[in-house]
Amino acid sequence: MERAIGENDRARQNRSFGENEGHGEPAISEGAHVGVNVALVGFGTVGRSVARLLSGPGAHPLRLTHICNRNVARKRVDVDWVSPDVRWTERFEDLLTPEVDIIVELIGGLEPAGAWIKQALDAGKSVVTANKQLMAHEGGALLRLASQRGVHLGFEAAVAGGIPVIRAIREGLAADRLVRISGILNGTCNYMLTRMERAQLAFDTVLAEAQAAGYAEADPTDDLEGYDARAKLCILARIGLQVALKPADVPCRSIRPLSDVDFVYAKRLGFTIRQVSRVERINGHDDHVDASIEPALVREGSALSRVQGSENLVVTSGTFGGDVGFSGRGAGGDPTAVAVMSDVLATARHTSPPDWFRHAADDRAVGVRHERLTAYFLRFVVKDRPGIIATLADRLSKRGLNIDAVLQEPGCSKEALPFVITLEACRRTDVEAAMAEVASLDFQVLPPLSLPILD
Amino acid sequence: MERAIGENDRARQNRSFGENEGHGEPAISEGAHVGVNVALVGFGTVGRSVARLLSGPGAHPLRLTHICNRNVARKRVDVDWVSPDVRWTERFEDLLTPEVDIIVELIGGLEPAGAWIKQALDAGKSVVTANKQLMAHEGGALLRLASQRGVHLGFEAAVAGGIPVIRAIREGLAADRLVRISGILNGTCNYMLTRMERAQLAFDTVLAEAQAAGYAEADPTDDLEGYDARAKLCILARIGLQVALKPADVPCRSIRPLSDVDFVYAKRLGFTIRQVSRVERINGHDDHVDASIEPALVREGSALSRVQGSENLVVTSGTFGGDVGFSGRGAGGDPTAVAVMSDVLATARHTSPPDWFRHAADDRAVGVRHERLTAYFLRFVVKDRPGIIATLADRLSKRGLNIDAVLQEPGCSKEALPFVITLEACRRTDVEAAMAEVASLDFQVLPPLSLPILD
Repeated sequence: MERAIGENDRARQNRSFGENEGHGEPAISEGAHVGVNVALVGFGTVGRSVARLLSGPGAHPLRLTHICNRNVARKRVDVDWVSPDVRWTERFEDLLTPEVDIIVELIGGLEPAGAWIKQALDAGKSVVTANKQLMAHEGGALLRLASQRGVHLGFEAAVAGGIPVIRAIREGLAADRLVRISGILNGTCNYMLTRMERAQLAFDTVLAEAQAAGYAEADPTDDLEGYDARAKLCILARIGLQVALKPADVPCRSIRPLSDVDFVYAKRLGFTIRQVSRVERINGHDDHVDASIEPALVREGSALSRVQGSENLVVTSGTFGGDVGFSGRGAGGDPTAVAVMSDVLATARHTSPPDWFRHAADDRAVGVRHERLTAYFLRFVVKDRPGIIATLADRLSKRGLNIDAVLQEPGCSKEALPFVITLEACRRTDVEAAMAEVASLDFQVLPPLSLPILD
Repeated sequence: MERAIGENDRARQNRSFGENEGHGEPAISEGAHVGVNVALVGFGTVGRSVARLLSGPGAHPLRLTHICNRNVARKRVDVDWVSPDVRWTERFEDLLTPEVDIIVELIGGLEPAGAWIKQALDAGKSVVTANKQLMAHEGGALLRLASQRGVHLGFEAAVAGGIPVIRAIREGLAADRLVRISGILNGTCNYMLTRMERAQLAFDTVLAEAQAAGYAEADPTDDLEGYDARAKLCILARIGLQVALKPADVPCRSIRPLSDVDFVYAKRLGFTIRQVSRVERINGHDDHVDASIEPALVREGSALSRVQGSENLVVTSGTFGGDVGFSGRGAGGDPTAVAVMSDVLATARHTSPPDWFRHAADDRAVGVRHERLTAYFLRFVVKDRPGIIATLADRLSKRGLNIDAVLQEPGCSKEALPFVITLEACRRTDVEAAMAEVASLDFQVLPPLSLPILD
């Protein structure tokens, strides 16, 4: 049973609000009488957007009371829209004062964010966070702690920025039994892949572009290798499939080996390439799921292929309701701030933890298997000579892999000749073993690449 | 502040549940101690699906206690999966007994559903309904009554079946300010239009097919004329834009005049045709919105064009979060039943009305204007003779309408020659006036058709 902040506090008993009133008004206004005090940790892009929403005329009765950040003196410059009543501090402990109701954590990373959130929950504060890595690695412990302390922990902004998918899954699809969650969870990779697809540019060119445009960070490892998407997938698996997937157990394959020629061949087959995140129950194996983050061929015109630029898409597959798709901007200050603020509003109405925290806190380990048979796209770049196809066909056949087609576009140099072999549906482990074996064959100019074909 | 059912009832105080527990279990199970009693009105397709979910091993502690339907004797045949403890009745009043907590209304239509829901709310029962016409016409009054009586009214299933868009808008996007809601809200029309698009079939052929396949009713008026989509749009406008749009004020245009040749010309322009529902704030006019349900040209590859078959799509456009899309199965017994059951679960946790009911109950009237300038597609079918284009160009020009292009595919009969004129962005009222005027010109074999081009 949930309670609103200060339910037992007579002085605050008329506080009930938090809805988008509309009629031309800004979002958050409502005729409540007593403020809910909000402290903000982290004053970067999202933090500033949240602070703006909390400082607007419509924020009443939410009240921004503290901003905690390193280097406060520098951060305070140019923010004359922040009320002079707001206390700026560099010490997290200053937020643990009784007047603060909700602490919003926007610094990211495992530490010190993890320790601070635990301190906050322990002190009986509700917490709203956009911290995907922390929720992916320690979501169970944090939800358990929130349950024990009888406070709320909102993390809508940790997955797919402005798309309210956590709430939709936990509440709107509560009566369904989800069997799979898949999607495009990293806007940086999707921006790059759709750019390669359209402009036929090399990977490094597109990466440099994305960095210049602010879509990719100076160190893009987390995005390109799939670690960012993996954190989001682990959170979705916990809340949607009720499995505690350890990030380290989910295989990630980088998009770095992709080249423009892969898009040409994919298109010839009626496909394009996306970084796809998937987690799926395995019938009869409750202690294992099938999960991965990897570049894959997706059919042109399919939901995954249609995700353009830095958009995100989450598709839930339910036993009763079928597929439901949620799409929108996966990142950015304002969409993420909307998710944070919607969580703050929900928390202000009900600080106590929803019942599902108890199940979602379950950390019973699940493993990852690859049970699904999938067709494969294998791309080779070779120094041409007779007998290459025969050699490869022989190696693949010895692993029980059946070739479906061999494709070679005309007009390429004999010194670096790309071609593609597609395989009929087969086991991932067999493909990986075969690729490891053929990688050493000396006619190759580039390492061979294998991509599953999702159809 | 919300309360759970029986919050003050010691005998029931440990009832807290309602979440999708997973780990291979059916959806609804949870270790609660006391039942929440649910009565069902209407035992059609959705009613049977809901009853199945409520009768499954995972339904505990939800308990189906009553089923109310006409002709109970006939309905009871072949439902041996319904517990013998369930009481079957033909009298709604039998459900108003103290033991019933939640009444689920699935009979549809304005009456007697409206009177029954009012009686239920008046008697302090929470209500879950899938009744779009009732919520569109009397949503304000019903939400007000629920607020006054301190009970809940769930209507997620009234819009877009299995897609949890009401909850997502009301809670997940609570901190945003929505300015537009658009989408494809009628699966029957979308099934027919995508079929016409792909198979190049005539309207009547596709309608007969859709009726045979169960996608269209024997009397398809509500779907084809847009009245079904209009009801859903009015509900979305109320909860998302906080405007009380009267269904009768929203212009609907039928998809009946569409022919296969329209899809040919649309494709030549890079477009296809969908039944599009839209409602949008008008800057500086808080008492008016721009709203319509009509067939329109949508660009190939756009979100609206990608909706296939009987799927639905809702796109919200927010000041801060940008566009968020929600897609899935808009109808059908099981998806709709998931929406109903998710509402029942939410209601069982919090019977009391959320605060937003008060604002959403606001029935301050808004009008409809057409402020947007839109390009137009005009299709004529004529008995060919010299001077037709000149005559039309003259009439259009006198209304200040500028022709962008004239298209005529080769190989058509001179006796019934189709061609298309596209107009530069213009006012809807000017196009309608011009079309009314040229409709009487005697060279026409079919009435002329105008479709907005949404880009």
